[in-house]
This record gives sequence, C-alpha cells and structure tokens, in this order.
Amino acid sequence: MAGNSFGTLFKLTTFGESHGSAIGGVIDGCPAGLKIDFNSLKKDMVRRMPGQSKITTSRKEPDAVQFLSGIFEGITTGTPLAFIIENTNQKSKDYSHIKDVYRPSHADYTFEKKFGHRDYRGGGRASARETACRVVAGAIAKQLIKDIKITAFVSSVGNININKPYQDLDFNKIEATIVRCPDLHVADKMIQKIEEVKKTGDTLGGTVMCVLQNVPVGLGEPVFEKLHAQLGKAMLSINAVKGFEYGAGFCATSMKGSEHNDLFNEDGTTQTNLSGGIQGGISNGMDIYFRVAFKPVATLIQQQQALNSEGNLVQMKGKGRHDPCVVPRAVPIVEAMAALVLADFALINKTNKI
Amino acid sequence: MAGNSFGTLFKLTTFGESHGSAIGGVIDGCPAGLKIDFNSLKKDMVRRMPGQSKITTSRKEPDAVQFLSGIFEGITTGTPLAFIIENTNQKSKDYSHIKDVYRPSHADYTFEKKFGHRDYRGGGRASARETACRVVAGAIAKQLIKDIKITAFVSSVGNININKPYQDLDFNKIEATIVRCPDLHVADKMIQKIEEVKKTGDTLGGTVMCVLQNVPVGLGEPVFEKLHAQLGKAMLSINAVKGFEYGAGFCATSMKGSEHNDLFNEDGTTQTNLSGGIQGGISNGMDIYFRVAFKPVATLIQQQQALNSEGNLVQMKGKGRHDPCVVPRAVPIVEAMAALVLADFALINKTNKI
Amino acid sequence: MAGNSFGTLFKLTTFGESHGSAIGGVIDGCPAGLKIDFNSLKKDMVRRMPGQSKITTSRKEPDAVQFLSGIFEGITTGTPLAFIIENTNQKSKDYSHIKDVYRPSHADYTFEKKFGHRDYRGGGRASARETACRVVAGAIAKQLIKDIKITAFVSSVGNININKPYQDLDFNKIEATIVRCPDLHVADKMIQKIEEVKKTGDTLGGTVMCVLQNVPVGLGEPVFEKLHAQLGKAMLSINAVKGFEYGAGFCATSMKGSEHNDLFNEDGTTQTNLSGGIQGGISNGMDIYFRVAFKPVATLIQQQQALNSEGNLVQMKGKGRHDPCVVPRAVPIVEAMAALVLADFALINKTNKI
Amino acid sequence: MAGNSFGTLFKLTTFGESHGSAIGGVIDGCPAGLKIDFNSLKKDMVRRMPGQSKITTSRKEPDAVQFLSGIFEGITTGTPLAFIIENTNQKSKDYSHIKDVYRPSHADYTFEKKFGHRDYRGGGRASARETACRVVAGAIAKQLIKDIKITAFVSSVGNININKPYQDLDFNKIEATIVRCPDLHVADKMIQKIEEVKKTGDTLGGTVMCVLQNVPVGLGEPVFEKLHAQLGKAMLSINAVKGFEYGAGFCATSMKGSEHNDLFNEDGTTQTNLSGGIQGGISNGMDIYFRVAFKPVATLIQQQQALNSEGNLVQMKGKGRHDPCVVPRAVPIVEAMAALVLADFALINKTNKI
Repeated sequence: MAGNSFGTLFKLTTFGESHGSAIGGVIDGCPAGLKIDFNSLKKDMVRRMPGQSKITTSRKEPDAVQFLSGIFEGITTGTPLAFIIENTNQKSKDYSHIKDVYRPSHADYTFEKKFGHRDYRGGGRASARETACRVVAGAIAKQLIKDIKITAFVSSVGNININKPYQDLDFNKIEATIVRCPDLHVADKMIQKIEEVKKTGDTLGGTVMCVLQNVPVGLGEPVFEKLHAQLGKAMLSINAVKGFEYGAGFCATSMKGSEHNDLFNEDGTTQTNLSGGIQGGISNGMDIYFRVAFKPVATLIQQQQALNSEGNLVQMKGKGRHDPCVVPRAVPIVEAMAALVLADFALINKTNKI
Repeated sequence: MAGNSFGTLFKLTTFGESHGSAIGGVIDGCPAGLKIDFNSLKKDMVRRMPGQSKITTSRKEPDAVQFLSGIFEGITTGTPLAFIIENTNQKSKDYSHIKDVYRPSHADYTFEKKFGHRDYRGGGRASARETACRVVAGAIAKQLIKDIKITAFVSSVGNININKPYQDLDFNKIEATIVRCPDLHVADKMIQKIEEVKKTGDTLGGTVMCVLQNVPVGLGEPVFEKLHAQLGKAMLSINAVKGFEYGAGFCATSMKGSEHNDLFNEDGTTQTNLSGGIQGGISNGMDIYFRVAFKPVATLIQQQQALNSEGNLVQMKGKGRHDPCVVPRAVPIVEAMAALVLADFALINKTNKI
Repeated sequence: MAGNSFGTLFKLTTFGESHGSAIGGVIDGCPAGLKIDFNSLKKDMVRRMPGQSKITTSRKEPDAVQFLSGIFEGITTGTPLAFIIENTNQKSKDYSHIKDVYRPSHADYTFEKKFGHRDYRGGGRASARETACRVVAGAIAKQLIKDIKITAFVSSVGNININKPYQDLDFNKIEATIVRCPDLHVADKMIQKIEEVKKTGDTLGGTVMCVLQNVPVGLGEPVFEKLHAQLGKAMLSINAVKGFEYGAGFCATSMKGSEHNDLFNEDGTTQTNLSGGIQGGISNGMDIYFRVAFKPVATLIQQQQALNSEGNLVQMKGKGRHDPCVVPRAVPIVEAMAALVLADFALINKTNKI
Repeated sequence: MAGNSFGTLFKLTTFGESHGSAIGGVIDGCPAGLKIDFNSLKKDMVRRMPGQSKITTSRKEPDAVQFLSGIFEGITTGTPLAFIIENTNQKSKDYSHIKDVYRPSHADYTFEKKFGHRDYRGGGRASARETACRVVAGAIAKQLIKDIKITAFVSSVGNININKPYQDLDFNKIEATIVRCPDLHVADKMIQKIEEVKKTGDTLGGTVMCVLQNVPVGLGEPVFEKLHAQLGKAMLSINAVKGFEYGAGFCATSMKGSEHNDLFNEDGTTQTNLSGGIQGGISNGMDIYFRVAFKPVATLIQQQQALNSEGNLVQMKGKGRHDPCVVPRAVPIVEAMAALVLADFALINKTNKI
C-alpha cells in the first residue's frame, strides 16, 4: 500500500491498525519555532473520541497522544514530529467471528482481494480509528495557521437539515450539543432521530458543513492543485464520505451565470459569495465553505447477510460497539483535514513570488 | 506556481496559456510497448473542440496535437511523451479591454493578487483551454487500460435532469446529440434550454455523470489515496466544477445503513451498488459511477459590473465567443481525468503484492 | 525540515532525535505477503550497534526495534510498517556543556542558523543514531529483493587500503574481524591503527566498498533517476560521507575510451566491468560496485576550539563516548541504503512495460 | 520510464530524443516576477553547444530555445515555463547501422532489455543531447538565485591536473581557453592531449570542479535531502559521470579528525574549509566546492566489438561526429545542475521557520 501520506510541504504520514499495538503519524515539514498548545490539541481529540455521549459508540478509548520527536522545550525544531496513540482497548476476540467473513459495504473484501493478507481485526487499517491521527496533525496545522478560523458542524442527520445559511448560525453553540449542530432546535431533533435509529440497531448518514474564515488571498495552486480540489480530496479520504461540494455546489448547476456570478465591491470583496471563496483554485479572501456527505455507518447491530471466504453467504450481526451516526464525531476530523490543506498551501504560497 | 502535474507513476504535467504560442503537456511514466491509436485520440479532441455545434462557443480552434517525443514507429518507448497544441487562433486584441479589469467570478483577481504579474489574455493559464491537454493525456491513458470502459454523459442542464438510473440508458446514443445526453427526449429539452439562455447572453450550469465499467478489483490505495478521493480531486480540478459525489452520494446521507448496505452475491458481486463500486477506497469490481457539478460559465454576453486594478467598479460585457453551457464539451474532459486516475492506480497496483 | 523521506514506491520516513524518547520510521509501499525474518533484521542491527567492539564507541544502546503496524501474523499486509527504537540510554546531562556551543565540523551551527531552535543534546536530529532506522528499513528491503546479494565491507581506514580487486576477496571473512575488512592481514593493521589513534583522542576516516550481485537487468530510471545517481544520493545522505564513486570511478577520468569500454560477450555479459554494472543509469546484470568516502569523526576527546552563541571562541573537549572511526559500523548502513534504492527501483520496474 | 523530473518546488521535467522532432522541458514552480535575461541563457547554451571548437564534436546544432509559456512581457508569471529545442540536424541515416547493435559501454543494451522498444537513433533518450534542457533550466535557476556565484571549470583531462587550490585560480580565465581550464599553462597541455587522442579516434575522461560562492547559511534539508546528497545526485545524473566528492572528499578518508575539523572564527566563518561549506547537510556560508568525475566518451572512431540483437559479436566503428573529451562542454551542465539544486533549496528554505 502506498498512499499513507498527505501534503507536499506540511506532510502527514499515518500508520497503524485498529487492533495493532498503536496507531500514529509523522508530520514532516512543520516549520521550526511553533509553540505547541497541547490543551487545544487535546480538546480536538476529545471531540473525536469514542464514548463521548449517548449518541456515539460506547467504546472507550483514551486516545492519549505521545509525541516522540520534533518538539523540544515545547517548541517545534523543524524536525519531524512523530506521535503514537496506543491501542489500549483492543478486544481482538470481538472480531474472531469476522476472520473469514466479508461484511457488506465494508473494506474486508477489497482489502483481501487487493493484498491477499490482511489484519481483519476491527477493520485493521480501514478502521476509522486511523482518523485520530488526522486530528492530531490537524491540531498542529491549526496552530500554524492560527489566523484562519476553521469551523465545522453537523448540517444534517438523515433528512433533518439546518434550514438557514451558515451566516445566521451561532458557531459558539456547536459544542453546546452532543450532535454538534449549532441550531439547537434542529439539534434536538437530530439527537432524537439518532437515538430512535440506534434502538433498532440501524444507522444514519448526515452532512458536515465547514467554514474557513479569514483565509488570506492567494492560497491554492492553479490547475491540478486547486484549493477546492485538494480540500475535496482531503474530505473524500475520510471514511464514509460520499460527496463534496463547495460554494453553491450542486445547486450552482441549476443557476444562470447572471445569478451565480459574485459581483465585486470596491475593496475586492464580493457582494455575494456563491463561489465559496475560491476563484480559479485560489482563495479570494471571502469565506470558504463546503459540505461533506457521510453515508450511514455500515456496521449494524442487526442480522445481515455477509459473504465468507469460501463463497458462501452467511448471516452475521455486528457485535462491537459502533456509532449509530458518525457525523458528530466527524466534525473535528473535517476541521483537521481542512487545516492540513491550508497549512500546506500557506507554506507553498511563500514561494510563489520573488 | 506549482501544481501543474497530476499522477504518481503515470504523470501528466501541463503548461501553456490560452494566448501564448502553444499549450501542451508531458506524460512521464507511460509504459513502453503501447501502440498509440491516434484516431481515437483525435475523436476525443473533436468532442472537446470549440465550435462543434450551435450550443457551444463559435470560436474555432483546430487543436492539432503534435507529439514531440516518447513514441517511435507508433509505439511508446517508455520515455516521456511530450505534445504541443499551437494556439493558432489567438485574437489577443479581443482581450485588451480586460487588461486591468477583474471580471466577476473569474480568476483574474486571484491570479493578480497571488502572482503579481499575469497574462491577462483570455484567462491565461486559468483558461479552460488547458483542458485540451488533459484530453490528450486521457486518450493515451484510456489505451493503457483498454479493458475498462469509461463513459461520461450530460445528466443535467440547469434544472433539466435525466430521471432514470444510468442502467436504463443507451450509452450508444450519447454522441447522437450535440448535448451528449443519451436520453434523447431530455436531450432535446436541454438543447432548447441552452439556446434560449444563449440568446439572452446568459449561461447555464449542469452535471456530468461518469460510469467506469469492468474495473478490476483492487485499484485505489487506502487512507489518503482512496480511489474516489483521487477521482474527486481529478474532477474538482476541472474548470467550473463545484461538486463531486459517487455512488449514492449526497442521497446516502438521508438513508439508513440497512437501506444503503450492498449485500453480496456468492461470487463477490453485490445485489445493489449504492457504494458505487468502491469500498474502503478500493474498487470492488462493480460499476464505479459519479456525478460532477459544473457551475454556469462566468463570462456573460451581458453588461456586468467588474472591478479594475485601481479599485473602481466598471461596466463590462463579454465580447469573446463563449460557451453558454460547458457540460457538453466537459464530457470528454471528465472521461480523460477518470482515465488518468485509473491508469495511475493500475500501474501502482502492480506493486502491491509480492 | 522536509527531507525525512526516501524512495518513491518503497518509501521510508524517519524521525527522532538522539536524546528524545524514541527514534523510528515508517515504511510505506512495502508489498503485502512478505514473511519477515526478524533474526536477519536483528543481525544487521547488531552490526550497526554501538559498543560492539573495542574499536567502536563504548556507549551501549540495545536498539530494540518494536514494530507497531503493517505486519500481521509475521507477514506484511501492504499497510505501512511503523517501528520505534526507544532511546534508553539518554544521558542528557552529558550534553549540557554544548547547549550554547557550536562544535567544529558538526551540525550545531547550521541547525541553529537554519531553524532558530534546536535540540542540542547529542546532536539531536543530526546524530548518526538516526541511521539505525535506515538499517531497520534496509533489512526489510533486503528481504523484498532477496535474490540480490548486497555486500559491503571496509576497504580502507586512514591510509591503510585493501590492495586487491573485490573479486579476490572472501566475503565470508568480513564479519570475522571487528573492522569488517575481509583481507585479514589488512584488517589487523586497520585495527591497530584505530586503537593507536583512539588513544590520542583523535579519529580516522575510511572508505566502505559495496558490491551488489545478481541484480536483474533493467533497474534504474534514465535521466534524473539513474540507478547510480540514486545510489549516490543514498550514500551521500549518510552522516560523514564526503564522496561516492562507482565502477572505475575517479580512476576512469584518466583512462582512454578504448581502455574503459567494456566489450560484450555473446550472452550480453561483458568481458570487463569498468562501468560498474550500470549503463545509461540502468543495471546491465553485471556486478554493481561502488566506494563511499567517510571523513574522520568530528568529535575528538581532545581540547578543541569551538564557538559559542555569543560569538566567542571557547575551549571544549568531547566528553561522550564516540567512535574513533565510523567505517566498521557504517558497513550495514551502506548495505541498508543500497537495499532501499534497489527495492524501490525493483517495484518501479514492474510498471515499465505493458 | 519515470524519472524525468528533478526538484521539489523548482521542478524541471525534460523530454525528447536526440533524433525526434524536438527536445525540451517544463519548469514548474518558478516564482512569478522574475525578469528573464535571455542573453545570459544563450551564453550558457553556447558554452554547451557542439561544434564550438576543434576539441569538441564538429556536429553543428544551433540549439535555439523557444519558450512556449510562463513568461509574459519578459517576466515570469508563476505558471510553468515550457521550452523546446528543435532537432534540426537529425541525420538519422547515420544511425541505421546501429539499429540492431548494442555498442559497448552505451545504453543501447540496457534500454532494449528494460523497455523492449527503443528509439535507437543517436542514443535516443540516452543521448547527452538531453543535457541542453538542463542548461536552459539552469540558466533560469541561476537568475532566481542571482546572489550566488556558480563557477565550474575543467580540473583535469586524462592525467593532466590543475595542481593548485581553486583559490589560487583566476576564474575570469576559464572562458579564455577552449578547454575551460583557468590555469592556462595546464590548459594548453590539456588541449594538446585531447588533440593527440582525437587523432587516434580514441577519447579521454576528466574532472570538472565547481565552486558555489556566497551561498546563504541554511540551504539543504537534513537527513535524506542533505545539500551535498542532492548535489551528488544532480551530478551523477549527468551522462558519463562516475563519481562525486565535495570538500576534502576522498582525501578526507586518510586524514585525522584533528586535521580535518574546521575551526571557527568568531563571526561563524571557519579558518579552514575542508568540509566544503556544508555541515549536517546544510550550507554554512563558506564556499561549497565539489569535483565531478567523467569517464571517457564511449563512442570511438575506431573499430570495436559490439553485440547484435541476435547474440552475435560484430565489428563496428563510430561514424558520427563525437567529442573526444566531454569535460569542456560539461562545465555549463555542471553549473546548471548546481543551480537547479540551489534554487530548489532556496525556495524550500523559505518555509523552514515560522
């Protein structure tokens, strides 16, 4: 497998299986001289942590991050930052029943066919546990680009949506509910819906919206490394993501140019922002906003038909402790990936003009 | 500017401004021994070519592709394939009126701010003319992975949609209409709509759907280089694209897991394919399908407010010959980018097992 | 700092400072299905280990390698192999005297000027301790290309040289002496010389020769990624290396073409091998051999003039336990780097022809 | 073939065969705002040009460089600079006699075995003609880092050496002789020697020395991307290069640490400079100097034994017009590659500290 690195100058490489001894990552290219705020990093980890509320998995993983290198006296030295998170809660026996079984809509079958040999325990490398490493690196990236405000929140759960533009929301309320939806009335409905579905052993999808504010003009590289192309890749690389749109997104397809174009103000800002803060792949200084679609979790606590390695269909039922809906925990992951993209482009952008 | 290369092993680097002497590209990593079918390449170029029908720009560009290297006696040698397309139809005077003007929802302003010095003629490097090079490289890539069938078509124009699953469409009819929509009844409506809007000097958005058939199991690299993440990036890097979804896409977000999961057949295929042929970032052998959202073209043949470099709002009107709707010409570009992604992953996949 | 990764498909990323909690690495791109021989890995680690003989540093570091991921039931899974080596013998107090001092011919000054903030303990990231990670990854790489025989040995210490072509040496005797020189008579003189110089607190340079046998025809990529260019970079990236030559090397510069050309045999082998097994950057199936120059260790157990951060010249004396000559311990490092280069090119070469 | 790109941020990709329609390259990552001095570029091209004197090949190639993109009104725009050099002097018939013949110590055999299909005319992609593109890109790179003085010269031809330290040479005299050796007395002997050998149809090797002056402290990235490691790779990637050493180089191996260490002056400069201006892979502000070994040209105007594709040994004689000794023409190539390395590291270095 290749493909475990993300970024050009600010580069994260992650490793680890959900039931190996540890997961972790290496950040290469973080500039020297950055004082690390470990509290802020921890806060993001807690937001992603399993077992945080009644609507997430009840699995408990402390997810203590241990830095091994690259930080001296609390400040980055310019050398690679390596970190590990031990897998302290490995109940491998939980997974013996899936050793030779390919669960529907999981990566079991494709990993087996691609690699021939796989760690089947808990999804192995395909487990969403890997995203903890993204949150660690994202927390460092956020500190590197601290003038940019990155805010993600749950914009829909199943068919329950926020029906307001993000400008009308109070972002301070995002963390006020366990579902991370700043519209508290809608949040209640979402929580209720998740609990309802959870009781039946079923799961729900949803969307996460992310807003990037105070982004300087000029981030992103034209042609193949457009800012939104890399943001899209970042988001689509998160487990369970099925779609990405920015600015007016799919809605733009049914608009006319005269409706969609953002007219300028004299200071270079625009009167509307259907473009979503990016023109020609380069940030224009307006808010960047995008929406990420998450499918419903594939592991059900219901009887389901699976395939075994001998080509027989078998009945199986998820025994583990799984999230009925991933979006509340996906919020910090979306933010982290956005931060990685922005930090990388911010560094690259230092080299664009003589 | 960095960011003009795409791919890891099968790597395309493009160059050129719309009004420079030529655009072109270099393909590095194309295996030796591939007999090039230049006719098939030319067909794709013709499908992208301006001036092909009454619903595209009337601008004529022959777009003759000249290969400079990497092919000997009609067969690739393993060395880089360089090609150029001369800009024979440069009417630079057409653009003198925008020298100091930033058009709304164009890349003029962001290029100026990022680079300080830019070729303003016809959008320069930000011009969609650059996509011609993608079609050239994509045509080579298609030949490298010739067992995979790549089919894109227009699935919506404005709010006129195909209301059928792609399985019910006859792909042979795609090229039967100038709008490249295989549902001929819908196609007629689309054409009518585009002509209507064109008359007013306005433009329309739309969507392109793409289906990848006969993809072997195992393409794509887990974690950051998931097959759909790279497809998403590829599509989002095309001019005017605002969104990407694959499989059930955004619809998946309002489904339950029990509805969305694709149950297996005994041969490893699945009964449904809401996943869109990819599990854990790796192709599972089922059809891969995705949808790409294009915004309406920003250049209007209407009076619009623009900003000049001195910070004054000015009135301007597009004088050039522009597409009222890009999706018919975007079809071969979407296919080309899909081919680049698949060819690259097909090469990488040769190294995944001992 | 960027630059902590090596390789394109078989890619090693290393991290860690000599006096942090651990050093380690991540190997991405190792194919699945490789059964790891941990004994053979351990043997290479022991050959690099400090404290192995009277002519190396007396410092003891167990250098126990702990794998965290990528191996399941003893076999690689295709996912990244991460490993750490804890720094159990960190005597940080040993280094407090150099906190504000730049030692001559060390990296103290350049790290300070480049990064502004550095871990000064034991050389930090610039310490040769980092090479332990290369040996780990090299041991895996060797197993991936197990048909290729990689043999390095000490070819000179100071001005004591082996005066025979490598074909006349018995490689089985390399490990028979602590200096890793297969000519036992010369080895004795080398050991004696090192002991002599060690007594005075001084140090010695030397050369390591490496022979790659049974390399298949076709490894290496023309132009910038020539096999010898990448081997050269690999070797020059090892601490203390000042030069690299392959085949006839610098001697070739005073030869005529008629003397230097290697005439063919009918089976494609050559009668002579002054080219060193590489033509046009691609292996030709003959032995590849090269020589690596190591400068004398810069840390002396003698009084020396150093510079402090306030711009004053100060007297200092190395207090640590240092090698009087690095070449005996460099032998497995040279082999490891060669293995990384070959493994990477062997994977890339799978994609060169259709 | 992969491997036709060099550099991370300032990245050159080259293409083209000696007897195709053109060779050329693309420079991606050149910052915007650089005013190009085409005269200075042309001077370097003329220094590399065949047919420049009686001691080079008599082949005439005008090597006119045509830029296709990335420069607008004489100034770089930040977009990729593509350039081509047409092959106007293709005498393909000259090479028909080698169609099925592998010349000794050429890349014919290895290309054939690696790729299966090759352009045999004039060495195809393996021809040193490719280095013209390096000189073009190097000339741009030099202008980007214009404060650094890059000077290469011929330090030996066969066994005729300059026996002075470079500090005692007058670099202004380098271009005063056709052999590019600033010690005019030695230059005469070199020229005489080359003419002598040329008469017999034989060839000679030699060395090129390069001195980089006024390099800022801090260029180069520790561990795998050490400044000298990348310089070494750059040089070893030039056709016919067999060795690289910097600073005291191979001589350092027979020195003691007390002799080799460079003691500091109070201003951070050093009293001696055996290290060659680099510590720990990072420039320290002192002169960087290195030596590059070139083997004798393999094409002789003598009868030689070659191998044909049917496994028979055949007699052949070089008919083309070839250099009796490459080093005079290699001087600008060495400089160009050094410039590419320095420009890339200068850009990367902008991102090393917050």
